[in-house]
Amino acid sequence: MPLKALAFNSTLKPSTASEASSTGKLLELIAEEFKNHDVEFEAIRLADHDIKPGVTSDEGEGDAWPHIRQKVLQANILLIGTPIWLGQPSSVCKRALERMDAFLEEMDDGRMVSYGKVAAVAVVGNEDGAHHVSAEVYQALNDVGFTIPANAVAYWVGEAMGSTNFVDLKQTPEPVRTMISMLARNTAHLATLLKNSQYPSEQR
Amino acid sequence: MPLKALAFNSTLKPSTASEASSTGKLLELIAEEFKNHDVEFEAIRLADHDIKPGVTSDEGEGDAWPHIRQKVLQANILLIGTPIWLGQPSSVCKRALERMDAFLEEMDDGRMVSYGKVAAVAVVGNEDGAHHVSAEVYQALNDVGFTIPANAVAYWVGEAMGSTNFVDLKQTPEPVRTMISMLARNTAHLATLLKNSQYPSEQR
Amino acid sequence: MPLKALAFNSTLKPSTASEASSTGKLLELIAEEFKNHDVEFEAIRLADHDIKPGVTSDEGEGDAWPHIRQKVLQANILLIGTPIWLGQPSSVCKRALERMDAFLEEMDDGRMVSYGKVAAVAVVGNEDGAHHVSAEVYQALNDVGFTIPANAVAYWVGEAMGSTNFVDLKQTPEPVRTMISMLARNTAHLATLLKNSQYPSEQR
Amino acid sequence: MPLKALAFNSTLKPSTASEASSTGKLLELIAEEFKNHDVEFEAIRLADHDIKPGVTSDEGEGDAWPHIRQKVLQANILLIGTPIWLGQPSSVCKRALERMDAFLEEMDDGRMVSYGKVAAVAVVGNEDGAHHVSAEVYQALNDVGFTIPANAVAYWVGEAMGSTNFVDLKQTPEPVRTMISMLARNTAHLATLLKNSQYPSEQR
Repeated sequence: MPLKALAFNSTLKPSTASEASSTGKLLELIAEEFKNHDVEFEAIRLADHDIKPGVTSDEGEGDAWPHIRQKVLQANILLIGTPIWLGQPSSVCKRALERMDAFLEEMDDGRMVSYGKVAAVAVVGNEDGAHHVSAEVYQALNDVGFTIPANAVAYWVGEAMGSTNFVDLKQTPEPVRTMISMLARNTAHLATLLKNSQYPSEQR
Repeated sequence: MPLKALAFNSTLKPSTASEASSTGKLLELIAEEFKNHDVEFEAIRLADHDIKPGVTSDEGEGDAWPHIRQKVLQANILLIGTPIWLGQPSSVCKRALERMDAFLEEMDDGRMVSYGKVAAVAVVGNEDGAHHVSAEVYQALNDVGFTIPANAVAYWVGEAMGSTNFVDLKQTPEPVRTMISMLARNTAHLATLLKNSQYPSEQR
Repeated sequence: MPLKALAFNSTLKPSTASEASSTGKLLELIAEEFKNHDVEFEAIRLADHDIKPGVTSDEGEGDAWPHIRQKVLQANILLIGTPIWLGQPSSVCKRALERMDAFLEEMDDGRMVSYGKVAAVAVVGNEDGAHHVSAEVYQALNDVGFTIPANAVAYWVGEAMGSTNFVDLKQTPEPVRTMISMLARNTAHLATLLKNSQYPSEQR
Repeated sequence: MPLKALAFNSTLKPSTASEASSTGKLLELIAEEFKNHDVEFEAIRLADHDIKPGVTSDEGEGDAWPHIRQKVLQANILLIGTPIWLGQPSSVCKRALERMDAFLEEMDDGRMVSYGKVAAVAVVGNEDGAHHVSAEVYQALNDVGFTIPANAVAYWVGEAMGSTNFVDLKQTPEPVRTMISMLARNTAHLATLLKNSQYPSEQR
């Protein structure tokens, strides 16, 4: 059975927006690379869904999270894609991370339901902020049970105070291609290892 | 004319929730202290309002932000109150910060519309994260033109991995009272100075 | 009496290093701009001095901090200049911030000795990290009593994964010039206000 | 051959200091737990060594880093222990992270020399800051090639504005014991997997 990767596109804009999503573009490039590692890929554009604020797994009527959460549980790899605003991850990204706080209480044989899943990060912005965004996401996801492979981020930002969008670049810069290649390779490798050999439960 | 303080309560729960808001409790204590400095106080519970994701000042039909933004512009002091989740500010807090990204383009006589306004932060959590939350909020608000007085944060968190809520404490701990007193005193002082002597415009 | 600005150059390299300091270059540009606001300027290259690790104001024999600390106390403005390494402020910068932890206990008429002093930040890196660096520095300095004026950071970084040094740019990019101008103008304005009207002490 | 864990104690105080190190105490508890997983343990108190500032692997005469770097390369697990100052990792911790920036250029068969090594974090403070410290360390170490197992941090901090030291607690709080147990178990498991099955090189 192939590995499954689930990606969150945390752009602030729903699919109906006229502008193309730079985050979406980076996720597409990563999806393409995942194919070389036999990883199935699905992306969810979070702004298309009504994810209620909260820290439980179901915030009641109309909450889109329980359905998305099911997809997280079925995936081996969770890829958080987010734009940078004010040097930080988007509020849409934060909303999804927050909902996974519930994993802290959700145990399966003494392990969080997220154990054995591998996380990676894709970040784009007009300028500055990618390292900090990855720091925020790594820590949040590690706290709720995800494992982070070596060099788990692919990002692009322009020069200081720049205004170019990644989606408008004529070609993907070489360093970004390298990061994508490393991200896919390392993520698939580690997800395979953990799929075949889950973390031991407490009782060992 | 007295100073006006506007507070954002960025709890994830709307007012209709059954649990009391710890963030709300801390904001009330600060409101009380602001009275000693003749500062008028208004709190908005953000989760009660449909603030659309985006980085413009009006994201169209149903967007609650334009009305809230007007209140920001009328205030001398903006107090960001937020709970801590996963060691970070709430997604509700992030949403509001993100909307103020628009100030970067909104100039009045060569200054952002936020110039001369003073910002402070109120943070509560079961445990750990307050310093980082204040760092995130300071940087975001400073980028969009706010000024930050000395010791601009009041916070409470419990011991590592604790689960006590601030709102359930029998009395306000002395260090929290001290922080509240400093926050109100310094914020009011600096807001008065800037009200009487706005930052010069570029053309000076 | 003119305002005094003290700048820390937190490059990892001492003055004897062969390479020019990009942080030093940015500080020079800011120094130039401060002249337009009658601000006296002095820069200290921290790596030239043996600042001991610690959180007291004097860590004993051979500690260079007490002398530097005196200069901080005499300044109206503290400008933290730092390179970015791994998306974060330099260890040399962190060392100096850490030493100011001692201000938390050093009171003058009920206020920290840093009260009334204004802080700003200058950041350069080959790439990504400036927003986070400013967040770290704002929070650390605000905790120990400094006030942060609107738009208190000037920075330059190249495109993602870039390797250009600021000191090697043929000319200063326009957005950097704008940031420098705002930083100097706002910092001088706020430092003047606070010099003429110190924060009230607790007893007022 | 058993796994080897190398721990950095990033306290600001050298071994000759009169006070016991809280960071050291937490590292001892983790070392004890590692024994249950057949992990050999060595701790280095960084403040005892003259680690020069820099981002190369050898900063010349008197630099203690090359020797410490050899130990890193021989270890399967790197455990970063640090106190919290101003809500952030210590400057001593930052110095060591900075030195590993050199790994970005040091490739072995197309992989950084750190590939296959697993990192974890131990944090203590009088109060608040552990989540942010772990975020900083995760991001820095992941950037330079380390892998981060699920729940890779063990920490203790007291209530807001507290002044108790971890080393002075009469007994280790239950949540800290749980974190230590998870950290050791997960770290040993993942290090074993990667020891037996290194990340593929680019050429695969």
